This record gives sequence, C-alpha cells and structure tokens, in this order.
Amino acid sequence: MPLPVTPALTTDCVVFDARGYVLLIRRKREPFRGCYALPGGFVDVGEPLEHACRRELKEETGLDVGALRLIGVYSEPDRDPRGHTCSVAYLAGVERADVHAGDDAAAAEWVADWRAQSLAFDHAQILGDAEKLL
Amino acid sequence: MPLPVTPALTTDCVVFDARGYVLLIRRKREPFRGCYALPGGFVDVGEPLEHACRRELKEETGLDVGALRLIGVYSEPDRDPRGHTCSVAYLAGVERADVHAGDDAAAAEWVADWRAQSLAFDHAQILGDAEKLL
Repeated sequence: MPLPVTPALTTDCVVFDARGYVLLIRRKREPFRGCYALPGGFVDVGEPLEHACRRELKEETGLDVGALRLIGVYSEPDRDPRGHTCSVAYLAGVERADVHAGDDAAAAEWVADWRAQSLAFDHAQILGDAEKLL
Repeated sequence: MPLPVTPALTTDCVVFDARGYVLLIRRKREPFRGCYALPGGFVDVGEPLEHACRRELKEETGLDVGALRLIGVYSEPDRDPRGHTCSVAYLAGVERADVHAGDDAAAAEWVADWRAQSLAFDHAQILGDAEKLL
C-alpha cells in the first residue's frame, strides 16, 4: 500500500551569531523571489529532518552548525503559495562565521536589523518563536 | 510546479490522565496489528497539524482534549515499515474520561503499566520524551 499524500515536509534554520545577527538568504526563485528568508527547503525521502536542515543550510549559505534545537512546527495550509507545506524549524548558534550564497539563495547575509525586515512565508513568526527560546 | 515528494507527515498524541495512565490503542491493521500504539495517523492536505492530531484522537478513541503541547518530531527513515514517515507528536492531559475504540483502533484503553508494554513504531521513545516534559 503506497503512503497517502500529505502536506510536503520542509525545514528551516534560524542561526544567530554572538552579536545577535541572524543568517538570512535572499531567495533566488519564486515564490518571494528577492525576499529575505530563513535558509531551508524540502526534506528528501530517506533523510532525517535534522540532516535535511543541516544540508539546506550548508547548500544555501556554506555554514556548518553544531547542535540543533527544535523551535516549532508550522503547518498552516496557506503558508506557502505553491501548496500545503509543513516546516519543522530548528535553532542553532555560532560565534561568527563567513557565509556565501549557494543553491537556491541569491545572497546569504548576517542581518542585524532582522526585526525590521519583511520575510518570506511565515518566517517572521518562526524567528519570533526562536527569539523566545534564547 | 508540483511540490516535491517528501516523507509522509503523520501525528501522534500522548494523553495522560490524572492517575498517570496513558491512552493507548490496539492497532486494527498492519503494520504492528494488535500492538499497543499511540493514537494518531496521517495528516490530510489542507489540515493544520494540531487539527489532524485532534481528529485522529477523536476518531480512534472518542476523546476531545484541550491544549496540545509539542513533544518532538520523529523522522528516522526506518521508523515505519510502509515507507518514510515523519511524526509530529503532541502531549495532552485530561482528568479522566471514558474512551471507546473507533476507526483504525481495535481497542482504546487507559494503560497503567505502559512502561512495561511493547509499543508499535518508535512510540516508546515518544512516550519517554513526553514523560520528560511532565
């Protein structure tokens, strides 16, 4: 029996550095092309979630991180205009690190005034929830 | 562009009553037919996760619960013999309530010695993680 069709599973990563800057990418593709967003993407079949989170972070920003802490799960049906996706979001911290854009990211930057930015999807909510954990 | 194929999304619910009993079902179908398991199941497209958790709990045990608290996310590729599934598990508490089996459950019971039981999937791990939150 094949597995039923369910919402598509994604993961996003909130990375703070020691200054309180957040690592954001500029999206290279639609939806939200050009917008700031958290690094992240779709989980592959056969891939544990934390692995997918680290892989997407590495692909999009070049960064490796240590321990991941679960922030929350975001599953509102209208959160992604492409269809129903569910994101599992993780928090990581680094002292400070060079980053460089790759894969689906047009840019990867440490952003100081992230509270003032307009973010793609429900990423402002994810960032707000991450901040509460700190 | 269609969404990519990802692991299938499921949800499970740990419900403790005031005595410390846990609400378990006996699985009516394979895999793990006849085994104790947490109430839960696949998330429908268009359905937020907490809604799916409440729906499955109601369908399988007849129970309505109040606030749900996130326990964790379980995504090891071999956790379900049918294929790669990812479960988001929630914790709820009730004083005490009558339950009755429905849908995919052959039985629904409040179980006192749940630590001594062999549970389907990785549900023993989920229960252990839930206990740490109490």
